[in-house]
Amino acid sequence: MQKPKWVVEKEQARRKAAAETVWLFGLHAVRDALLNPRREKLRLILTKNAADRLADAVAAAGMTAEIADPRKFPAPIDPDSVHQGAALEVRPLDWGRLEDLAMAATGDGAERRAPVMVLLDRVTDPHNAGAILRSAEVFGARAVVAPARYSAPETGALAKTASGALERQPYLRVKNLSDAIGTLKDMGYRVLGLDGEAELALGEALAEATDRPVALVLGAEGPGLREGTKAACDALVRIEAAGEFGSLNVSNAAAIALYATQRR
Amino acid sequence: MQKPKWVVEKEQARRKAAAETVWLFGLHAVRDALLNPRREKLRLILTKNAADRLADAVAAAGMTAEIADPRKFPAPIDPDSVHQGAALEVRPLDWGRLEDLAMAATGDGAERRAPVMVLLDRVTDPHNAGAILRSAEVFGARAVVAPARYSAPETGALAKTASGALERQPYLRVKNLSDAIGTLKDMGYRVLGLDGEAELALGEALAEATDRPVALVLGAEGPGLREGTKAACDALVRIEAAGEFGSLNVSNAAAIALYATQRR
Repeated sequence: MQKPKWVVEKEQARRKAAAETVWLFGLHAVRDALLNPRREKLRLILTKNAADRLADAVAAAGMTAEIADPRKFPAPIDPDSVHQGAALEVRPLDWGRLEDLAMAATGDGAERRAPVMVLLDRVTDPHNAGAILRSAEVFGARAVVAPARYSAPETGALAKTASGALERQPYLRVKNLSDAIGTLKDMGYRVLGLDGEAELALGEALAEATDRPVALVLGAEGPGLREGTKAACDALVRIEAAGEFGSLNVSNAAAIALYATQRR
Repeated sequence: MQKPKWVVEKEQARRKAAAETVWLFGLHAVRDALLNPRREKLRLILTKNAADRLADAVAAAGMTAEIADPRKFPAPIDPDSVHQGAALEVRPLDWGRLEDLAMAATGDGAERRAPVMVLLDRVTDPHNAGAILRSAEVFGARAVVAPARYSAPETGALAKTASGALERQPYLRVKNLSDAIGTLKDMGYRVLGLDGEAELALGEALAEATDRPVALVLGAEGPGLREGTKAACDALVRIEAAGEFGSLNVSNAAAIALYATQRR
């Protein structure tokens, strides 16, 4: 019996995803990936100098590095990348299902906190996405969720900006962001979309949701949240500013929103 | 009579500073500088396309652009810069004296807020400095202060990240950062140095300084604040985090500290 078409397509998609690899670079990012047992590592290229500096991590990962001449570094990465003589080919991490990440409890008793999630609506800049992963980790967010298309892929540039957080902080790509918002709402999350034009202040919105799980949704700089995303949120909120001019960089807005949510 | 040596040296330094010019690039940064009457503009190079898009700003500035071929854009900027066909040679802005910036009042009556300053201890990355200028403007900080040496110069890359804030937000370079801290303390500022290892939480420190002017001091990522800078501060504070790993990007830490200070 032939497999149904949807099964075939699903299998093809899974094989395609499994075939995708990423080159991480830079001493910090490569060390973090080497020390991550959940990370599937394929190929390691190091200069002699980098091999000396990463010797412990290479040994811990049980890998053998290809030693390369720094003047003709063979890893297929952007020639302007500051690779510091270290490059590692890996597969993207599998963070599992949105529902499982959104449900897991953190802390016990007095330490117990209502969960926080961060959703990114077409934030494609790897430096912004990397800095957001970093802040999400610092403030204990469950996951950073982005649409599979129109998001910053898990590249070396993102890993470098994330400064290790890419190995530890779930970064989940979903098919449809509005569906993910719906799932979180069904699970009891209060979904707040950040919008500089909103009436409601972030502080006020959080004061009304002190015990509830919160999802913070941020859009790309310039276009901001898409109309469909705005409509899916429970409320739109703005970060209270003092000046009359200017707007925050999206990673700075995310950091502030995470801090305020954690301290509510 | 001959001028004393110190007068000659001061005049030389002033001439040298006046001779320094900066090339700003990108449509946004060039437009903002063209529309800033305080900005001394020297030379404008535009592609035909950029000239069309900036026509109103060029007219407002009363300048005549040199029209350039996009394939051989003649401005002396980094060839990797995304200049969008627009480059403008300018002189750095003169923001005056620290004491004057620190003293000026903002708002009246109920709107009146205690002043806030941001000090950067060797934050040399132009993207971080630019994002901090942007947040400083949003939260109405009086100035961003950095040492003349070991700070991010007012370059095109900084201007682009600052997204217009470079034209409006005072960015003052001082000879010695510890002296600047001393001046602010003498003026009644509470000077808080951000340090991930500090005992005191930012929120607690701000709760004890609700009516006072506050200066926030941030160091470069990695090295953090220098020992001399730490010693000069009134107190060292950490941003309250929830996770066990990771550290914040310096511009994200600045944004959070500004938000918390403004909302105390």
